[in-house]
Amino acid sequence: MLRVPEHQVAGHQASDGKLGPLIDDSGRFYKPLQNGERGSREVAFYTKFSSNANVPDHIRRYFPVFYGTQLLEASDGSGLQPHIILEDLVSTRVHPSLMDVKIGSRTWYPEAPEEYVQKCLKKDRECTSLSLGFRICGLQAYESEESGFWKPDKKCLQDFTLEDVRSSLRRFVSSNPLSDSEPDCSYASVVYGGPKGILAQLLELKAWFEDQTLFQFNSCSVFMIYEKKAAEAGISSAEVKLVDFAHVVHDQGVIDHNFLGGLCSLIKFVSEILASPVDK
Amino acid sequence: MLRVPEHQVAGHQASDGKLGPLIDDSGRFYKPLQNGERGSREVAFYTKFSSNANVPDHIRRYFPVFYGTQLLEASDGSGLQPHIILEDLVSTRVHPSLMDVKIGSRTWYPEAPEEYVQKCLKKDRECTSLSLGFRICGLQAYESEESGFWKPDKKCLQDFTLEDVRSSLRRFVSSNPLSDSEPDCSYASVVYGGPKGILAQLLELKAWFEDQTLFQFNSCSVFMIYEKKAAEAGISSAEVKLVDFAHVVHDQGVIDHNFLGGLCSLIKFVSEILASPVDK
Repeated sequence: MLRVPEHQVAGHQASDGKLGPLIDDSGRFYKPLQNGERGSREVAFYTKFSSNANVPDHIRRYFPVFYGTQLLEASDGSGLQPHIILEDLVSTRVHPSLMDVKIGSRTWYPEAPEEYVQKCLKKDRECTSLSLGFRICGLQAYESEESGFWKPDKKCLQDFTLEDVRSSLRRFVSSNPLSDSEPDCSYASVVYGGPKGILAQLLELKAWFEDQTLFQFNSCSVFMIYEKKAAEAGISSAEVKLVDFAHVVHDQGVIDHNFLGGLCSLIKFVSEILASPVDK
Repeated sequence: MLRVPEHQVAGHQASDGKLGPLIDDSGRFYKPLQNGERGSREVAFYTKFSSNANVPDHIRRYFPVFYGTQLLEASDGSGLQPHIILEDLVSTRVHPSLMDVKIGSRTWYPEAPEEYVQKCLKKDRECTSLSLGFRICGLQAYESEESGFWKPDKKCLQDFTLEDVRSSLRRFVSSNPLSDSEPDCSYASVVYGGPKGILAQLLELKAWFEDQTLFQFNSCSVFMIYEKKAAEAGISSAEVKLVDFAHVVHDQGVIDHNFLGGLCSLIKFVSEILASPVDK
């Protein structure tokens, strides 16, 4: 039985009869193919990526597992529609804290139609993409059974300044994300730090991006996940995944300097929190 | 006595009675202040940079020494004009091979006037800046007393494709840059490679750019210099300098992800030549 995912922080959502992704009980995520080139480009990416022997195994684990495509009853009642079948990244989580960070100061690609380029450029300039090299597109941070999640809405995220980004990355790993007081960064060392933490994973990705010329990950996101209960117990449960490949292009013969620059910027923010978890 | 520099590969040139930089016999380079904000921004950069105690010494050596400003008779006969006095980067060289690489897929800065943004964006999209994260703005490679230098003109450089960039970076370290045959990359290992080579210097700069949030080096160039005679003798004489700071902005609280991405892209090209100096 397919159902609407409980934990989704960005992208099209299948609530209120709209078209959006569905999940099942076996840990699979069914994403409707986007219109036109986007959908076909995302399928092409997963197909090429899955079969590309030049992608090292330690990098492959940063990508959702791809199970092919399938015609399914769409969530908006429009009948059978093609869906990409992927690993559901949060199926094993109870109260997942999530952040979706779209990487790159430029979210468009050189070959895109002019109208699309101008639309993206305007958006990149209006949010933190241009200045920081990334923007936060969605997030939720679990606080408690009683108070639930801190989950700023889309409009709020769009208006984020540099200081909002800095503070959200702190709040994301705090025990009190919903509080008006300073975020305590209680889980910074176990979520961001350590050999299995988010920083270590971002650095492993960075090393690959310094070298790989297979793909240009335009408008792709770093998706960060952890579980508060595990963090409280000092257990590392943090995962980094790359998601959203509708604008990926291939074989340009050059590294993805746009993604790499933005990734390094995100790494710097995370490193600074680890260096001084108590706000100065 | 001030005179027109013999070796200049990019920027305004003081030949034919135009306004351009001058040099003297003591190793100083006199650059006329550009109009409006550009000139004042470049002086502001050198002044801040010179006095900033947070710039490590091993990084400071990648920048021309700054000796202040002075009113001087301009090269175009327009009378006394303010000039920035800098170290002449090639004064000790006999037949310098030079390359000026403007770094960054974006050469404009967010706060610039809209007309300027659109002009730069158009140019960045028409050359390799957008795709490669850098563009070659000027170069000369010395071949011999008889044949002189390989020095493609400005128009030719503007039309460079990815393959032209790749081949020029090979030709730049070849004994036969003017030849129609394959560049031999004879000097790749001594110029690009080794502990004092260009790659090592670029990597040292990269490590700083991963961390520094003091300056955003918009539209700044990496300038590479070596001497063929030294390279032939197996002596490393390669130097990397950063030049052109008319669009630098300060204290944005974020790393310069645009410069860093482009620098990593250049590093990848240079690394590939070292990995296979004989073209496949």
